[in-house]
Amino acid sequence: MVFHYPNGQPYSNNETKSTKNQAQQLKATTLFGNRGMTLEEELNHSNQYYRLHETAVIYKKPTPIQIVKVDYPARSQAVIKEAYFKQASTTDYNGVYQRRYLDFEAKETKNKTAFPFRNFHQHQIEHFRACLHQGGICFVIMKFVPLQRLFLYPATRLISRWDAQVNGARKSIPLSDVIENGFEIKYQLNPIIPYLDAVDLLLMQQNKGV
Amino acid sequence: MVFHYPNGQPYSNNETKSTKNQAQQLKATTLFGNRGMTLEEELNHSNQYYRLHETAVIYKKPTPIQIVKVDYPARSQAVIKEAYFKQASTTDYNGVYQRRYLDFEAKETKNKTAFPFRNFHQHQIEHFRACLHQGGICFVIMKFVPLQRLFLYPATRLISRWDAQVNGARKSIPLSDVIENGFEIKYQLNPIIPYLDAVDLLLMQQNKGV
Repeated sequence: MVFHYPNGQPYSNNETKSTKNQAQQLKATTLFGNRGMTLEEELNHSNQYYRLHETAVIYKKPTPIQIVKVDYPARSQAVIKEAYFKQASTTDYNGVYQRRYLDFEAKETKNKTAFPFRNFHQHQIEHFRACLHQGGICFVIMKFVPLQRLFLYPATRLISRWDAQVNGARKSIPLSDVIENGFEIKYQLNPIIPYLDAVDLLLMQQNKGV
Repeated sequence: MVFHYPNGQPYSNNETKSTKNQAQQLKATTLFGNRGMTLEEELNHSNQYYRLHETAVIYKKPTPIQIVKVDYPARSQAVIKEAYFKQASTTDYNGVYQRRYLDFEAKETKNKTAFPFRNFHQHQIEHFRACLHQGGICFVIMKFVPLQRLFLYPATRLISRWDAQVNGARKSIPLSDVIENGFEIKYQLNPIIPYLDAVDLLLMQQNKGV
């Protein structure tokens, strides 16, 4: 009789193999924060962890694509033969956590001292503004790649600095501002990016402010 | 001096032209509920109306696509040359309305007396279950095409009937049940599908229930 793990994998009592697999998995996970996975992949894994543990239901939205030509070969799946990438009108991630609507964008920079505004688009800022107006929880997950440091940076702060730079202020957010007004997220085993801990701190701060 | 309407159109005092345009617009709008627009298009228009009026921020998610081959012709945009449609793991629409997370699916049937369960997939039911667990507002917008009748049908009711049919009960939801447990939505001028009115009724019912 074959037993199956909840993930659908058959159970194997071959211990050597099993232990080896576990070691490989652990090694892979330890490296997550350093290389091998993009920030998007790390967040997808974290969201999957949060869904499995019924902590939150958050997904990355699919990339919007303009389809021009589709073939329907006999007896097989439709094949898209010509299509183009479209610019998204919203941010990349949204979902629900403890009755609240969460909406965020994930961005990386190779810069060590500041986060350049060229990483953002006007329509993303407007989307944040609209969601905040409806009472959504909005933020950016910022990664300073050379420093391997991650932050949750509130959209309210992002918007005020964005508006200032449109009016001539500095075209980037200094790391010191991110440290002061954001919430640092430390890579860990599972979820790799425990960003909901930072969301809890953001909500606490908002509740105090009200 | 040129005056502009709030929609950005310049004001024209050429009455003949203006009246003709308005008549054309009215005719087009009156037909919305009958033909010319798919349910998806009608909902996209309604969501755009709600966003413009700052009532809610709700979008249809892009269709998920598995990209296999991309060409990068010199000096021009990337062209997707081979891609396939993927099954979505979530429902089609989500967003934020009055601090609440909204999540829904839109479905049509040609049936006049019942809504067949074959219109739904197990993963959509599971997604609704997970979102409800987080306190999201979840529902289906059902259209009985031959009757030109639209309903908001609560996901809680959908799930209990789905679970019953998995255990052998009826494979469709009778129209009488949809009328009794859903909220009818009447087509109107703007927004074409005023489904947030039905959401208000759903929320009132839930608040009474608590």
